[in-house]
Amino acid sequence: MSAERRRRRPRQTVVEKPSGPVQPPWRLHERRFDPTPIVSEDELEAIHEASLVVLRDTGMEFLHPTARKMWAEAGAKVDGDRVRFDPEMVTELVATAPGEFVLHAPDPARHLPMGGRNVAFASVASPPNVADRAGGRRTGNREDFRRLVMLGEVLNSIAFQGGYPVEPVDVHSSVRHLVATRDLLTLTGKALHAYSLGAQRNRDCLEMVRIVRGVSDDDLEAEPSIFTVVNCNSPLRLDTPMLEGILQYSARNQAVAVTPFTLAGAMAPVTVAGAVVQQNAEALAGMAFCQLVRPGSPVIYGGFTSNVDMQSGAPAFGTPEYMQAVLLGGQLARRYGVPYRSSNVCAANAVDAQAAYESVFSLWAVVMGGAHMVMHGAGWMEGGLQACYEKMVIDADMIGMVGEFLRPLATDTDSLAVEAIAEVGPGGHFFGTAHTLARFRDAFFKPMVSDWRNYESWAEAGSPTALDHAERLVGELLDAYQPPPLADDVRAELDDFTDRRIAEGGVETDF
Amino acid sequence: MSAERRRRRPRQTVVEKPSGPVQPPWRLHERRFDPTPIVSEDELEAIHEASLVVLRDTGMEFLHPTARKMWAEAGAKVDGDRVRFDPEMVTELVATAPGEFVLHAPDPARHLPMGGRNVAFASVASPPNVADRAGGRRTGNREDFRRLVMLGEVLNSIAFQGGYPVEPVDVHSSVRHLVATRDLLTLTGKALHAYSLGAQRNRDCLEMVRIVRGVSDDDLEAEPSIFTVVNCNSPLRLDTPMLEGILQYSARNQAVAVTPFTLAGAMAPVTVAGAVVQQNAEALAGMAFCQLVRPGSPVIYGGFTSNVDMQSGAPAFGTPEYMQAVLLGGQLARRYGVPYRSSNVCAANAVDAQAAYESVFSLWAVVMGGAHMVMHGAGWMEGGLQACYEKMVIDADMIGMVGEFLRPLATDTDSLAVEAIAEVGPGGHFFGTAHTLARFRDAFFKPMVSDWRNYESWAEAGSPTALDHAERLVGELLDAYQPPPLADDVRAELDDFTDRRIAEGGVETDF
Repeated sequence: MSAERRRRRPRQTVVEKPSGPVQPPWRLHERRFDPTPIVSEDELEAIHEASLVVLRDTGMEFLHPTARKMWAEAGAKVDGDRVRFDPEMVTELVATAPGEFVLHAPDPARHLPMGGRNVAFASVASPPNVADRAGGRRTGNREDFRRLVMLGEVLNSIAFQGGYPVEPVDVHSSVRHLVATRDLLTLTGKALHAYSLGAQRNRDCLEMVRIVRGVSDDDLEAEPSIFTVVNCNSPLRLDTPMLEGILQYSARNQAVAVTPFTLAGAMAPVTVAGAVVQQNAEALAGMAFCQLVRPGSPVIYGGFTSNVDMQSGAPAFGTPEYMQAVLLGGQLARRYGVPYRSSNVCAANAVDAQAAYESVFSLWAVVMGGAHMVMHGAGWMEGGLQACYEKMVIDADMIGMVGEFLRPLATDTDSLAVEAIAEVGPGGHFFGTAHTLARFRDAFFKPMVSDWRNYESWAEAGSPTALDHAERLVGELLDAYQPPPLADDVRAELDDFTDRRIAEGGVETDF
Repeated sequence: MSAERRRRRPRQTVVEKPSGPVQPPWRLHERRFDPTPIVSEDELEAIHEASLVVLRDTGMEFLHPTARKMWAEAGAKVDGDRVRFDPEMVTELVATAPGEFVLHAPDPARHLPMGGRNVAFASVASPPNVADRAGGRRTGNREDFRRLVMLGEVLNSIAFQGGYPVEPVDVHSSVRHLVATRDLLTLTGKALHAYSLGAQRNRDCLEMVRIVRGVSDDDLEAEPSIFTVVNCNSPLRLDTPMLEGILQYSARNQAVAVTPFTLAGAMAPVTVAGAVVQQNAEALAGMAFCQLVRPGSPVIYGGFTSNVDMQSGAPAFGTPEYMQAVLLGGQLARRYGVPYRSSNVCAANAVDAQAAYESVFSLWAVVMGGAHMVMHGAGWMEGGLQACYEKMVIDADMIGMVGEFLRPLATDTDSLAVEAIAEVGPGGHFFGTAHTLARFRDAFFKPMVSDWRNYESWAEAGSPTALDHAERLVGELLDAYQPPPLADDVRAELDDFTDRRIAEGGVETDF
């Protein structure tokens, strides 16, 4: 055996924790340009007014007696489950919501400003199924849940955990919120979503987050530390668990993202403008209720309007209509002066060109439309029915590119490079210039997934696709995962609480 | 055999010319929003000024004695091949270029307004290689050239033919321009590019286009009917054939897209701003020369700045740096009041997620950056080294989506749908309402490629990817191809001219 070969294959290797693939660093993203409007100011007012007419004449169902009682006391017209609103009451309530706030993460280095020029991307949330290339598609379970949380932690482009990255169906629903929230709080330091699943579960999650943040009840109320998505049961209905969410979380000054589920042609009118009129009515009513519960509590205007395939009824995502609706929702959120939530969506079943183009069309719309909170930023497939490991890596890489695009373009004298251009002159090249040598290492964004080799080298390497690279990267990234620091006493307190609540049976279910 | 089965399998089928896959109709696209700036007005001026300093102090090589003579007479400092410019001379010359013009197509229904709010997408141009899934990657040839021209003709999203969709290498270069241009003029009615390949070839192409347009020499000059891309041999050099192109085409009032080839880190500084300073200097010098040749002749500001992988030197496309450069180029073109040319680019070797995300990032930048002429809109792979059939279909579908996104969002009273929302009420659905039934057929964009079936139906159908669908669509689209109408006498005149010039040997070459 030659010396060279011996050097290459040492008999003993020191196993070190790999640092993982090269990624862009964790950073907050700021839009440096104004969001793009899709309609004129007059058209925007027409949509706003139409939404108020809907709330005044048709109204909305609030499936919670406490909510209806509060509305009646506030002067709304309550008739059975139906609540009809004086337009001024709605706009005055929404006006008490803050324009910006900070979403506090367990790890203080991961706090997120919400509003203004900021934009933050979450990992996928809530699919019932999970898939990776090796294992195929399967029902959500705790093991995959944990691994996807870890992948979301290790990927720097992902700013916060959008929820359960896949539903851990193998954990009984009586204790699932306890098991899953403890997993989240021990596996990630990033900001968290909590589901609105009824009063007791909401209280459990709040307490667990409070423990890990190491703050008092009062501090927790001063520092919004979780957000919940309140989906409207469109058209025009807020159901009991969702209203319970507002009653709990808004009361504790936590963030509520009111998100109507308005698929044009199905649960909303077949026109984009009509669907957004309905979205806007539902969002206004929901946000107004948050403010009725606690004036000044942080709310987020959620837009989720997309369309369905009118032939099959199948939902479609990342479409031109979705893009228009995202831009329009952003204009409305800015009109009301509240942060805006949107999503990175796709309907694709395979991690192919469709998955990528539907997702980048979504990213285009959310970035240009002025979204602050981008749910499902990484890993969403099949219109939300599947969380996918490889897609999460590709999405995270794409978000990294978006983040780089959003960084300020340096225009100082050195960057303008007039001297370097003079030095090289006509017909030369810049590879060896001092200007290049001083900058080349960090000059450009380095994607994880993109394969830029020439065709011949690429073919020699086995013609790997983006999916091949993503599959490899999933493994490398999970190998590089490290749990966030958690003090022993905090961990003990979290375990005490969680174990006790699990021992108590969690929350009774009827199955 | 049951009656049902007999109905499903008729013994004889009538074969009709297929109308092909459902596509959006041919249409012109208008941006309804302002382009997005990437730098402030002050920063833009700094870049502009830096470019003028480059032109004043370093200057540019013009490898053509006629060009140098004209510059000397105009008052520029000529020293060998090098021309140095008084800043005012450059800006005054560029100011004589028109802000908008019409690029006339052989088919009058395909004329293209260039400038203003318009944006038009071309088919891929100039790769040396061609690929489809069945046949793999191969050197460009006339058969593939013709089939790609036909695919570009039949795809409604493609507004014009950007050049030779692949180089027909099997046609000898002495007559290639004659054979290829006749193929183009008989296979497509869409607007055309002509290469700048020396004086005689340029004259041949102009005459062939004149014949097919059926106009006089004077009318051809009044109606720009071809455009040529003049690439700078960056850094800071315009070579002989390119200058010949300006001398010929600008003199005849045809459109010239001056496009520096400024890959940051290789032929341009490693900073985006520095690369664009150089791009801008070269574009200004080229456009100024067009105006020197013929004041008021149509020019297009071409931006092609991207970056290279600094580890390997490989060019990268559809990157964050590319997006920034595209937005910045748009700001500069608007500053000079001329139409802006950009491209839909990618570096991918496979028609995978990378190909799609790099392309949509490009489309994002060109649309938001205010490009009017988008070269390589459909079919570009491998950084321009490969034209791909399936990618052309996927790109065309994506351009269709972009076109739909750009359409005005209807906000009339009917579209706001307040009555339909009242009719359906809380908890209902919109599938059967009169509002939906009146609109559902044409309510939403119908992509050709996207597969929106649910996972189970999709898996049952064999789990087709976007590439599978595109492969099928290539065949269906080519089956539906129909040549543009061409009067017998025009065709005869075109053949007479072309055959005569071929018989004469075309243009002498040294190989």
